Amino acid sequence: MDVKSYIESIARQAKNASFSLAMLSTEEKNAALVKMAQALESDKDYIIAENKKDMEAADENGLSKAMKDRLLLNEKRVYAMAESIREIAAFNDPVGEVISGWRNKDDLWIQKVRVPIGVIGIIYESRPNVTSDCIALALKSSNAVILKGGKEAINSNRAIYKVLSDSISDLGIPEGAVNFIDTTDRDAVKALLKQRDLVDLIIPRGGEGLIKFVTENSLVPVIKHYKGVCHEYVDKSADVDMAVEICFNAKVQRPGVCNAIEKIIVHREIAEVFLPKLEKRLSTAGVEIRGDEFSCGIINCKEAGEDDWYKEYLDLIVAIKVVDSLQDAINWINLHGSHHSDGIITRDYASAQAFLRAVDSSSVYVNASTRFTDGGVFGLGAEVGISTDKLHARGPMGVEELTTYKYMVFGNGQVRR
Amino acid sequence: MDVKSYIESIARQAKNASFSLAMLSTEEKNAALVKMAQALESDKDYIIAENKKDMEAADENGLSKAMKDRLLLNEKRVYAMAESIREIAAFNDPVGEVISGWRNKDDLWIQKVRVPIGVIGIIYESRPNVTSDCIALALKSSNAVILKGGKEAINSNRAIYKVLSDSISDLGIPEGAVNFIDTTDRDAVKALLKQRDLVDLIIPRGGEGLIKFVTENSLVPVIKHYKGVCHEYVDKSADVDMAVEICFNAKVQRPGVCNAIEKIIVHREIAEVFLPKLEKRLSTAGVEIRGDEFSCGIINCKEAGEDDWYKEYLDLIVAIKVVDSLQDAINWINLHGSHHSDGIITRDYASAQAFLRAVDSSSVYVNASTRFTDGGVFGLGAEVGISTDKLHARGPMGVEELTTYKYMVFGNGQVRR
Repeated sequence: MDVKSYIESIARQAKNASFSLAMLSTEEKNAALVKMAQALESDKDYIIAENKKDMEAADENGLSKAMKDRLLLNEKRVYAMAESIREIAAFNDPVGEVISGWRNKDDLWIQKVRVPIGVIGIIYESRPNVTSDCIALALKSSNAVILKGGKEAINSNRAIYKVLSDSISDLGIPEGAVNFIDTTDRDAVKALLKQRDLVDLIIPRGGEGLIKFVTENSLVPVIKHYKGVCHEYVDKSADVDMAVEICFNAKVQRPGVCNAIEKIIVHREIAEVFLPKLEKRLSTAGVEIRGDEFSCGIINCKEAGEDDWYKEYLDLIVAIKVVDSLQDAINWINLHGSHHSDGIITRDYASAQAFLRAVDSSSVYVNASTRFTDGGVFGLGAEVGISTDKLHARGPMGVEELTTYKYMVFGNGQVRR
Repeated sequence: MDVKSYIESIARQAKNASFSLAMLSTEEKNAALVKMAQALESDKDYIIAENKKDMEAADENGLSKAMKDRLLLNEKRVYAMAESIREIAAFNDPVGEVISGWRNKDDLWIQKVRVPIGVIGIIYESRPNVTSDCIALALKSSNAVILKGGKEAINSNRAIYKVLSDSISDLGIPEGAVNFIDTTDRDAVKALLKQRDLVDLIIPRGGEGLIKFVTENSLVPVIKHYKGVCHEYVDKSADVDMAVEICFNAKVQRPGVCNAIEKIIVHREIAEVFLPKLEKRLSTAGVEIRGDEFSCGIINCKEAGEDDWYKEYLDLIVAIKVVDSLQDAINWINLHGSHHSDGIITRDYASAQAFLRAVDSSSVYVNASTRFTDGGVFGLGAEVGISTDKLHARGPMGVEELTTYKYMVFGNGQVRR
């Protein structure tokens, strides 16, 4: 079978399964999830052995240390995957929730009810735990899922898929609910992105290259987790010590993630007090500072170039910009940021209100580190990703964001006049 | 200026305006809407005179009677447009609604707040009232809007745009909030669909050709109002008289619209009683019946071809299919319909429940005509269209569906450990 027919047959099978998935009870889904978690644990040796093949190939292909760390599975990590599935089993079932309901003037009883989206394609790179997380999140939300992982993790992903799908084969979960694209042919992704009639949503998880490719080639709607160019703005009325600690935390605690800050915007009137303290604190972690002209007149830093203001460093580097007003800070963030997470540090009520309202980002903070943008930390349960899109889902995506709704209308013979 | 630069400059102006629009109060927006309604009424002669130019061109170009009817503006229609704007002014403001809120384990106070989407592009055909409706709906939801109407209505659309935007020029509505693409160059649409960084959403309103073109060429997310291939399923336990009346209403009351039915699915056990009564009733309106083999054995009809099951007739034609079970009816509808509006007519509780849950359509009905799928009739206020997509908005779209949300997080110095 050529790759196009292969992908279409998987998509068709997933679409058929999606109709039966919508009929599963919460109990049936949770029983399957618990069974999956058990299977991961009891088949851990097989999974780790298959992962070893990928690790050996990674050595041969000279993958970076960071990539190999993402790829590696050991006993602890397999147990963590199982634990994650158990947590997902414990969530509330989003399907069937009556979002709202009313009687209209025709005495129709209209209910807006949460339902699964249908078929979701996940295209991802390197980390094999995405395979088990996404299988579990999709089942919890009664969606059929089609997984396409990176070729560097193909043996690990296949093993996890096999263990999970075998474990539920006798539990009444419809065949085709969970699908794994078992090829490293690059045309498989392209073919998946064309399945407009059978696939309802594509979620790409990975680097900028993958996201760009998926966005530009997909006929299926895409929700993407793009980059995080996050800011903290230090208002003129900020508590300086709080500002230093928040900026330090947001930059240093885990610099390689999307909700770490890359830029600090500082009000001119506080710059001379704030910047030297910040410099001292950041130096304890070895952070490189790139400043605008005004900052470099106050502290020791390299002058920032134009592209510094748009860059996601994902590293111990921060760029500092001094502005004349709150409004300038807001405009700067809206025009240079990535609309992910941005915060203000202030003691002024009106500044806080204006910032929250005017900054066009998925998560806006007053007096807190941007590092909190996370589905689990917010309290949404698990996280499918953090959407940097504005439609359907924005910010941290939980299982609820894997659902849509339909209107159920109860009549007693009404016709339209 | 070439058309690409022209479109980009409009999109940039709209994006800038969107930031200020987010800061407008409900009162400022409503004052502008009322002013717009007044302006339409006082400038009606100018608008009707400009419409005359389009009507004359329509004669010259031999447009169909139906198209000319859609294009025509007279005093009554201009007053109706003004009335529609006043109704929109009277809606609740969706912006600023706190959808949900809680304290998380870090004592952060997290609020999920409704906000405008940003910049919305509307691409539409023939009917000039779309111009005023969309300007009003966008302003109500604090979105900047970019309008691209059909070339057959360019004079009417330009006149309406001019009257509305002039009327609010001194009311503090940001420049660039309302934009009209004043060219009939076909490349303008293509250029608009590429403005991924400046335009947040495209809504196409028009025929299948337009929708297809927009979907296949847009880098901006699209919510589409595609076709309505709607069904009524007559269950074996249906009240036959009710079934006849509902099917008659859903087919005949206004056959040219998307929520009229195109197909009737009938349980075999009721077919011999139901079909002759239906045939008689439909004949009073001159409806052409295309049936499957079984139907044609009971009543007088033309045999339906394979493509009849997928077709949106928008005319006094209906196709009838007889099935052996409720499950067959559900599968048939899911595989042949357009996921718009589908109903069951039944007296059986379990059949009603199964149908509502399993049919994958934006609006599912028990014992009522599908003709009720409409934002105004549902009680959503006005209607931007009826989404046949599953993401973001499904079914009738009101002003709420022109919004997204952001998380506002209130801290007091929290950093992540």
